[in-house]
Amino acid sequence: MHIHIHEFTTGPFPDITPDEWHEVAAEVAENTGHVVTFGASVEEYQAVADQVEILIASPYTLRKLDLFAAPRLLAIQSTSAGVDSLGDFSTLPAHVMLLNNRGVHGPRAGEYAIMALLMLQARLPYFATLQRTAQWHRLQTGVITGKHLTIIGLGSLGGAAAFRARQFGLRVTGLRTSAAPHEHCDIVLPIERLDEVLPTTDFLFLACPLTAQTRNILSRARIALLPSHAGVINIGRGGLIDQPALCDALNAEAIAGAVLDVFAQEPIPPSDPIWQTKNLTITPHISSDDPASYNRDTLRIFFKNLSALQAGSTPPTLVDRTRGY
Amino acid sequence: MHIHIHEFTTGPFPDITPDEWHEVAAEVAENTGHVVTFGASVEEYQAVADQVEILIASPYTLRKLDLFAAPRLLAIQSTSAGVDSLGDFSTLPAHVMLLNNRGVHGPRAGEYAIMALLMLQARLPYFATLQRTAQWHRLQTGVITGKHLTIIGLGSLGGAAAFRARQFGLRVTGLRTSAAPHEHCDIVLPIERLDEVLPTTDFLFLACPLTAQTRNILSRARIALLPSHAGVINIGRGGLIDQPALCDALNAEAIAGAVLDVFAQEPIPPSDPIWQTKNLTITPHISSDDPASYNRDTLRIFFKNLSALQAGSTPPTLVDRTRGY
Repeated sequence: MHIHIHEFTTGPFPDITPDEWHEVAAEVAENTGHVVTFGASVEEYQAVADQVEILIASPYTLRKLDLFAAPRLLAIQSTSAGVDSLGDFSTLPAHVMLLNNRGVHGPRAGEYAIMALLMLQARLPYFATLQRTAQWHRLQTGVITGKHLTIIGLGSLGGAAAFRARQFGLRVTGLRTSAAPHEHCDIVLPIERLDEVLPTTDFLFLACPLTAQTRNILSRARIALLPSHAGVINIGRGGLIDQPALCDALNAEAIAGAVLDVFAQEPIPPSDPIWQTKNLTITPHISSDDPASYNRDTLRIFFKNLSALQAGSTPPTLVDRTRGY
Repeated sequence: MHIHIHEFTTGPFPDITPDEWHEVAAEVAENTGHVVTFGASVEEYQAVADQVEILIASPYTLRKLDLFAAPRLLAIQSTSAGVDSLGDFSTLPAHVMLLNNRGVHGPRAGEYAIMALLMLQARLPYFATLQRTAQWHRLQTGVITGKHLTIIGLGSLGGAAAFRARQFGLRVTGLRTSAAPHEHCDIVLPIERLDEVLPTTDFLFLACPLTAQTRNILSRARIALLPSHAGVINIGRGGLIDQPALCDALNAEAIAGAVLDVFAQEPIPPSDPIWQTKNLTITPHISSDDPASYNRDTLRIFFKNLSALQAGSTPPTLVDRTRGY
């Protein structure tokens, strides 16, 4: 196979290095004899485009490459799990398999999830708001044990959140497309039943992919269904929430707090009123990535996909273009 | 026994109510036949002082009562664990046993501990500082697994922190007066060896009582021994830390962050520069109390002490006045 690893350096992560490739490739005995090239410019891509069979790149980079200029291309391994920025996939030839790296983000996301849940339980976003104006108000809350967590999306992010929540005795309701049981959820409901569970939700956790179906899933009307002591966490995508409506609810104390890691626009513009929203903790899209292991874990997923491809079976992290994840 | 429950209402908690007393007393079959009185004024105390044998009150209230006016007083049950505010105990008759409620605070303290550890690992105090001025900086950190936590004090607070930290794969070094092993610590050292472990400490957690020996234990010199990526958490007492030195270290980025729940002066005065300190999360002394269970759990501890007293054995939470806890 000719495998080309391409990245226009842009993000907070270093690109995959030849050393990382060789280190992970050496873990998998059968993966030898491939032609492996690396590129960071349009010219480097053009030089290999007529030979490349598998491309490894971020959605950001994929949007800038002419993928139709690669006639032998069989599969693309995305170096992120969310591929929503590829839109309707019209820039990808229809026969090319799109693979993501879902699973990489679980351990870090689980830590962020329970951190955010405990912060909301202890009212840390509220105290941070008071701290800005040197105000001391001793508001006591109890333990998180027994509280009701609702998780939208039970992929690796939502599953990791459920696992950690159960360590602290929360009652977990999961929602997903199917209502198939999940080992770390007390109950799983189909997403159509979301409105039923919101009024008894103490903490709402969004961890689903952004698709046409999930865009704006936490609408203004649904925010209004949450109890006033509720807290909201979003580590999925900013587009899952009606962001102005959430800010309104926070400023009006219609809900108690929120911890958000993803936003309608990233970076958040300095003039965006979200920066001044009450009882809101903002983190800059850092909930789910571990830079120390990210590239190696992505390559480990890639090699599992490659083995499946070579054996003629379905790659484990194949993206369903119809679903969008 | 004549048991008098007295409180000058001041704090964030409701006083112990007769209902709470009767509910918990009913759990313990042998505890019947006591004379139980309640008071909230000096006059109500004076009316029972010559009869009272056991007094249940907070250290705040104890400082305002003439305890030498109660000739039959055998024991005092403090409704807090820390009794440092009673100073050298000279306001307490020497023969009266002082009992605290240590153990009440563990579950909530464990939740606060792991929340604060995960916040420091993910750099939440830093992001909160940036949020105040609408700044987005995507600084990625990895999982907390494998990091080195040093805990000063292995009572119910420190023990609960160690328990939760081990759930997340931290390596835990505990320090206490003795070097007796602890079930949730990888290693326990005598407090005299603190300086040795600071340079390899990722997170320093203070959870010991405030005594003459522990006052200022995190001195300016010891803060300087911490690595620049280190984070500090204090849920013990403000007097454990040289607070101006800690603020200096935070502002100079000599350490990465801190989450503090207790302070040199509480409430923190509005003019105190600590409010403006960088990379610092302030919570208003709320780390360890669960209002829903606090009074009942305190009474449960009291009844264990009472059983021991009546059996002529040492009450489980007897305060050693020489140690101060």
